[in-house]
Amino acid sequence: MTTRVAGCELCELNSVVTPSTVVDNEKFKVILVDDANYPGFARVIWKDHVREVSDLADEDRLLLNDAVYKLELAVRDVMQPLKVNVASLGNVVPHLHWHVIPRYADDAHFPAPVWAQAQRATPDAVLAERRTRVPQLAEAIARRFARR
Amino acid sequence: MTTRVAGCELCELNSVVTPSTVVDNEKFKVILVDDANYPGFARVIWKDHVREVSDLADEDRLLLNDAVYKLELAVRDVMQPLKVNVASLGNVVPHLHWHVIPRYADDAHFPAPVWAQAQRATPDAVLAERRTRVPQLAEAIARRFARR
Repeated sequence: MTTRVAGCELCELNSVVTPSTVVDNEKFKVILVDDANYPGFARVIWKDHVREVSDLADEDRLLLNDAVYKLELAVRDVMQPLKVNVASLGNVVPHLHWHVIPRYADDAHFPAPVWAQAQRATPDAVLAERRTRVPQLAEAIARRFARR
Repeated sequence: MTTRVAGCELCELNSVVTPSTVVDNEKFKVILVDDANYPGFARVIWKDHVREVSDLADEDRLLLNDAVYKLELAVRDVMQPLKVNVASLGNVVPHLHWHVIPRYADDAHFPAPVWAQAQRATPDAVLAERRTRVPQLAEAIARRFARR
């Protein structure tokens, strides 16, 4: 059984199907994040309301690690970033989730983390081109998670 | 053989022994980060000059995952944070490393990531108390990595 906590934004998200959901199984979801500055930004969201990676049973921890790894591979393949940023923070919503973010020299914050102050505006044409790859990213993620 | 890249800050750090080094083996180092606002902040630094998690061989990736997990456990045990933040960014120094950061409601940036703008000054007495736990953290990390 999945533990759900009332008022937790991610527990609520986990209980519905949204267009941004690319993978949805018993243990986790993979979603595409709608961030105007970061096409290709994706998240793995654990289903159970767990706070920290180290709260998971070993088997689940390895499953989640593998999911983040597969997502990183798909993001690299399709988005061709200069660097990938991977993070589990959860200070605002303490429900285990991982951010996988493709980074580029011309993105809004590079080389600072995306949570720092923005340093520039990425040209619209560059963002638009990256955005065109998002449907392909969704397919690449779905393919990676379909394999066993 | 470990690949070293001239001019890479982490390749240089890997080639010397510093007082901040708690674990040092063939594959990675664990160091304590000297950050005035974040006593207990620690990093796992991969020895080989590798850019992304997904550039590692499977065996190495699992070893690194396990190292980050053990470090998280030690940080939780000793520092008793409200939340742990775990991240692999590497935009400035693209040499694979993981940040493990104990977070508290009264820390400089909470609930924002530590890379955002500071929101407050943590009381000196609070930081001083946390700092007293750092030698204990070093011991706890060393113990965790001594077990096989």
